Amino acid sequence: MDQFKFKIISKDKKTSARVSEFSTPHGKLHLPTFMPVGTRATVKTLNPEELVDLNADIILANTYHLYLRPGSETVKKMGGLHKWMNWKRPILTDSGGFQVFSLALEKRPMQNTDKKLVKIKEDGVEFRSYIDGSKHFFTPEKVMQIQSDLGADIIMAFDECAPGESTHAYAKQAMDRTHEWAERCKKEHNKLQKSKKIKQALFPIVQGGIHDDLRVESTKFMAKLDLPGIAIGGLSVGETKEQMYHTLDVIKDYLPEDKPRYLMGVGTPEDLLEGVSRGIDMFDCVMATRNARHGSFWTKDGKFNLKNCGFKEIADPLMKNCGCYTCKNYSTSYVRHLYMENETFGLRLVTIHNLHFLLDLMSKVRTHIKNGDFTDFKDKFLKRYFKKS
Amino acid sequence: MDQFKFKIISKDKKTSARVSEFSTPHGKLHLPTFMPVGTRATVKTLNPEELVDLNADIILANTYHLYLRPGSETVKKMGGLHKWMNWKRPILTDSGGFQVFSLALEKRPMQNTDKKLVKIKEDGVEFRSYIDGSKHFFTPEKVMQIQSDLGADIIMAFDECAPGESTHAYAKQAMDRTHEWAERCKKEHNKLQKSKKIKQALFPIVQGGIHDDLRVESTKFMAKLDLPGIAIGGLSVGETKEQMYHTLDVIKDYLPEDKPRYLMGVGTPEDLLEGVSRGIDMFDCVMATRNARHGSFWTKDGKFNLKNCGFKEIADPLMKNCGCYTCKNYSTSYVRHLYMENETFGLRLVTIHNLHFLLDLMSKVRTHIKNGDFTDFKDKFLKRYFKKS
Repeated sequence: MDQFKFKIISKDKKTSARVSEFSTPHGKLHLPTFMPVGTRATVKTLNPEELVDLNADIILANTYHLYLRPGSETVKKMGGLHKWMNWKRPILTDSGGFQVFSLALEKRPMQNTDKKLVKIKEDGVEFRSYIDGSKHFFTPEKVMQIQSDLGADIIMAFDECAPGESTHAYAKQAMDRTHEWAERCKKEHNKLQKSKKIKQALFPIVQGGIHDDLRVESTKFMAKLDLPGIAIGGLSVGETKEQMYHTLDVIKDYLPEDKPRYLMGVGTPEDLLEGVSRGIDMFDCVMATRNARHGSFWTKDGKFNLKNCGFKEIADPLMKNCGCYTCKNYSTSYVRHLYMENETFGLRLVTIHNLHFLLDLMSKVRTHIKNGDFTDFKDKFLKRYFKKS
Repeated sequence: MDQFKFKIISKDKKTSARVSEFSTPHGKLHLPTFMPVGTRATVKTLNPEELVDLNADIILANTYHLYLRPGSETVKKMGGLHKWMNWKRPILTDSGGFQVFSLALEKRPMQNTDKKLVKIKEDGVEFRSYIDGSKHFFTPEKVMQIQSDLGADIIMAFDECAPGESTHAYAKQAMDRTHEWAERCKKEHNKLQKSKKIKQALFPIVQGGIHDDLRVESTKFMAKLDLPGIAIGGLSVGETKEQMYHTLDVIKDYLPEDKPRYLMGVGTPEDLLEGVSRGIDMFDCVMATRNARHGSFWTKDGKFNLKNCGFKEIADPLMKNCGCYTCKNYSTSYVRHLYMENETFGLRLVTIHNLHFLLDLMSKVRTHIKNGDFTDFKDKFLKRYFKKS
């Protein structure tokens, strides 16, 4: 695993925040960072050049969606994800676990699983496609094989993500299964790696719901697997923000110091800052891109929506002094017009702005950790962001 | 009108095709050319940089749509179309006439107008908004004022576009009205021009349906107005291709030689070639961009559709040796995947390819006219294009 080198550049004195680098076959990650989500092998509305302009070090793709359509064999035949989508920088694929469970979530009682949509067995999970209802079976081994076909730089172990409100008993059951699956993933991954020219880093996923004892147990277990990174799953799935921050505080001291730590599915500006201060290095979330498609955009003064008719004749950009392509070239008036007319270029412009907002925030976070004034920066940012103007 | 200089560079010996240049305040048009349509001040899915990459000399915007939303006063307040949409090259706005009539077309008997949706009076046309049913009134004068507010380089006279199957009597009535309106447009336009810093070229629109005598009469009438260009409307609106080509043959000798000639709403590869050989210099059509959104793309071997499952694992681009961004960077497999998943980036990729196909065709047309082998080129292109492989 020599090529997945992790190097700490700078540590904050007041918090657990740190600046680091993680090397992958397709380039270096500058951490902490935010990873734009490209569910179906495309970050919605953007092309790779625009993502490079945004300084995105790495993007995500979803195993579950690509397995169902067009199929991981197709992506493999076409030369793997990087070649297929013309993206030369690192890619991370998730394990599909979250989707397998969450796309059946509404039908699932909190304590058990719906027999029709998702059937959990010790060997793996049987689920029905959200597209056509066809039956599929994921095992840890199969998920490793699929992710091997897709060819991302970082791949995730198969896990069961229990909802935020899960009882201790159910959260423990899901955690125990996740632990067993992680071991099986590691074994299968090691086997697959032998024949691989380009190596992949496997990250296990800590689970345990909002139960401190389970979270500590799970963190210790996953740390022991000694894989090149570690992820924290099962947060931002229904629990409160306080519960999420508390859980991060609880596990902080059990996370390996010398490996990148990835908090899955988290992506508001405030959660990034709180996560970084609790030692998190990587984040991903569809919010930046999904909100954009709903007309919602971030500024230093909070969140706004283009539907507001007050924006109709605003000649200023979405955010003053913003360095993104959108704000450098277009008025709020024009972006609003495109959005109101359902023009896809409008969605692209807001997506660019929102992703720039998060990626630029993380770039500033790295600078301020290095400068030793991260806490000041964070406090000032949050004060202005939450102050209603 | 000195700034709207028209210069013929080269004439074909066998046909009426010619290569020419037309100067506007925002740059020179290299004719013959195709003009991408940006109905709502955006060429669907593309940004201005992509249009520049495609070598688009000029784009269209629609007066009718922009008048209704966001309103021409808003565009004027925001600095005019060029500034608002960040497009530095020439723009042409249509008069709104086509939309006023065509958006009520289905409800309108061929011989008369539906009282409820559109009411034609000598003074102008009363119509209801396609958005909210609100009542509006367009006169030739008002249409000039709106287009003055929008600020395009080339603007169009207000016309009544009679459907392709119109009787002689109805086509004559619509033509006579169009003639009177053209004179009123010219008068109002001259008045508005006096206070303008940046000049606009007004083009009148020849009408007359598929009736040779009316078309000749209309062409003579519009030529006499001595405006900087001339447009042919009312074609490609329900008549056959043969009728359209015939009409162009009939009016050919009455079109002013020393002015750009614009065939409105026409845009298949074969129609561009047939139009050019009949002396047409400018074309526009939504087909290239609309087809793209339906998965349809052009190649030298004809028209294809991405829905075809045979494209699923094709590693080749949409068209071999194509110089467009899409074909240089993406496999048909990936473009199809994006299209099937309804990803807007897929629509962008097909739009780029289709527009490149037409713009590149026109660039080749210019070269071959200059080289003296335009007819050869045209024949070979059409033979291959229509040969079913």
